[in-house]
Amino acid sequence: MNETKPFLYHDQPVLPRGFRCGGTCCGLKETENDLALFLSDHPADAAAVFTRSHFAGAPVVRGRRVIKRGRLRAVVVNSKISNVGTGETGLQNADRMAQSVAAAFAVENGDVLAASTGVIGRQLPIERIERGVSSLTSSLGRDPLPAAAGMMTTDTHPKAFSLSLGDATLTIAAKGVGMVEPNMATMLAFIFTDAALNREVLDSALRRAVHVSFNMLSVDTDTSTSDMCAVMANGQAGPVDPPRFEAALTALCIRMAKTLARDGEGATKLLEARVEGAFDEEEARVIAKAVINSPLIKTMAYGGDPNIGRLLMALGKCLTCHVRPERVVIHINERRVFAESAPADFDDSEVRRLLGGDHVIIGVDLGLGEGRAEAYGCDLSEGYIRENAAYTSS
Amino acid sequence: MNETKPFLYHDQPVLPRGFRCGGTCCGLKETENDLALFLSDHPADAAAVFTRSHFAGAPVVRGRRVIKRGRLRAVVVNSKISNVGTGETGLQNADRMAQSVAAAFAVENGDVLAASTGVIGRQLPIERIERGVSSLTSSLGRDPLPAAAGMMTTDTHPKAFSLSLGDATLTIAAKGVGMVEPNMATMLAFIFTDAALNREVLDSALRRAVHVSFNMLSVDTDTSTSDMCAVMANGQAGPVDPPRFEAALTALCIRMAKTLARDGEGATKLLEARVEGAFDEEEARVIAKAVINSPLIKTMAYGGDPNIGRLLMALGKCLTCHVRPERVVIHINERRVFAESAPADFDDSEVRRLLGGDHVIIGVDLGLGEGRAEAYGCDLSEGYIRENAAYTSS
Repeated sequence: MNETKPFLYHDQPVLPRGFRCGGTCCGLKETENDLALFLSDHPADAAAVFTRSHFAGAPVVRGRRVIKRGRLRAVVVNSKISNVGTGETGLQNADRMAQSVAAAFAVENGDVLAASTGVIGRQLPIERIERGVSSLTSSLGRDPLPAAAGMMTTDTHPKAFSLSLGDATLTIAAKGVGMVEPNMATMLAFIFTDAALNREVLDSALRRAVHVSFNMLSVDTDTSTSDMCAVMANGQAGPVDPPRFEAALTALCIRMAKTLARDGEGATKLLEARVEGAFDEEEARVIAKAVINSPLIKTMAYGGDPNIGRLLMALGKCLTCHVRPERVVIHINERRVFAESAPADFDDSEVRRLLGGDHVIIGVDLGLGEGRAEAYGCDLSEGYIRENAAYTSS
Repeated sequence: MNETKPFLYHDQPVLPRGFRCGGTCCGLKETENDLALFLSDHPADAAAVFTRSHFAGAPVVRGRRVIKRGRLRAVVVNSKISNVGTGETGLQNADRMAQSVAAAFAVENGDVLAASTGVIGRQLPIERIERGVSSLTSSLGRDPLPAAAGMMTTDTHPKAFSLSLGDATLTIAAKGVGMVEPNMATMLAFIFTDAALNREVLDSALRRAVHVSFNMLSVDTDTSTSDMCAVMANGQAGPVDPPRFEAALTALCIRMAKTLARDGEGATKLLEARVEGAFDEEEARVIAKAVINSPLIKTMAYGGDPNIGRLLMALGKCLTCHVRPERVVIHINERRVFAESAPADFDDSEVRRLLGGDHVIIGVDLGLGEGRAEAYGCDLSEGYIRENAAYTSS
């Protein structure tokens, strides 16, 4: 971050100049929005990262090809069905989805990124989506929330933020509630800016921002087949200093990662791990993830129960990392709970109060090196079980 | 396994000749057994494996030293408090626990393996344990269940099995319900035999048996700080062919691993992954574990919901393994549900019925090589959340 205040969050999200979007219900869901479209009135440089899953969905397969040109005019997204495990028909449907946007808005098919999220192993009712896209031609605006709503699966609210960076605006819209432990990408997240940046700068800034934000997010350790994070820069606000842009992009992505964690399936709170003193950054990342992914820590956070031994367990199981128990210091929301090989002298009721809040921060100092990382997750409640014991049927 | 029937399970578990045991309540729990003692009347060759956790408990630290001599006379176990994260006092208490057995039963301190399981980060009330050990001198017998009960934490029932191998008997007693993804060891499991086997044979047989049984068990991906699996062979039944012994030991451990999985915290069913056609055995093990550890597959099994796309997700996220989607064939309880890149033509209600049973077997053929593995887990229910949202307080 620069010393000068580098950016300012908006109270309400709004798309940058030259972008429009909309959302509608095209009949995949009963009444709620299930289709989203984001459009740039001008050619935009673009970059994207995708899930590394072996079973990547048809939109991911197509998206990897499309993004090679480094430019986009539109992103179209449906929810409810993910178009994964759908073979050749699935690939054709992903292309028809893009083609419907190309036809309706007079852009090239190859400038349209298509994305889908929802149940795996079902074919898209593609005609409904095509009709839905046509219906959007007259109703595009700059409020990203109706489009963000069209991307929702079990999300409890649409998620979008904007910030100003000098004359430029950056806006992110995303969704992600379960099957969330992204790897080299995220759940669906789309970022729009009117800053002018070339595609190489955009690509490397996006990769670094995702590395410390969405790739440090986990709701349930399950990596989606549909993860995708793309950025479009249409240049309408002129050039921006690349390091400042990257700092703003990173902050925006971390903020969204925390928002996704807090809205994880069944989540009642944000669980954050802040690891320092690790042997190196990679080990810090592994340990931070182990903390936020441990079912026993997640249920401890849910119950507000001061069973801090579970934190030792989580460090203990990181067998690929350097851990020396006698050097470990652990804090919960800045209250020291373990140091010098023994539990700190804390009052159970105080720790219970800290764990009972809606933001639990586990601080771990390994006392070994300079490795640091933060990871973002949530607690594990009966709500997760309820959401997932009957997901296809609901 | 040999062609000749190598062993016969008993209807009721019983300790082999020359072993006695007992369990009692020494005041760690209110009324239920919280202390277990297993004793060999004769010197026994012995081997053991322990958790690889960086935060291994005091009994594990002491046990690693004790087992180096390759012989044991007794195993003493308490439940409720695990004596982990307890520093120098914890090590002294583990030794006092062994010393109380040495004094009461006239054996050497160094021939006593002490184990503890329960809450992490609390000191043992060691005097209660010492008095409890003394009280057992007059009440030892050959039924392992009272001792197995003394090892229980949230287990719903004590777990012990016996089998006959010619003239010899093998008996296992174990516990393990949460914080269960053993690595190079298991939750507490103790195996007793009157077969005569030297310690090198015993050690290598134990390591191989644990590799395919307890190390393929996971309730919740959380590796305990207290895992321990030991075997004692007192030789009273004379020599046994080592390969036959290893086959029997392996079968016994697999049976116990399945029993532990089925009694995982909140579990309503056994979830088994049978992977074949993997690139090699190691990849088969990773994939089998990914299947039984996926919260989304576990909740699918709990809800009996035929959302088979989650199986593709679990294979997809095994990024260190070879997976070619077009070669993958998946069965649920022998019903084909995915092949040739697409869901098989199955009836939802049939798959719902298969998932609704109390034993769900996910069969995965990668179609690539000769790697095979089986892993044992359980479903994920509200019961797990309830057990763990307030464990220290309960």
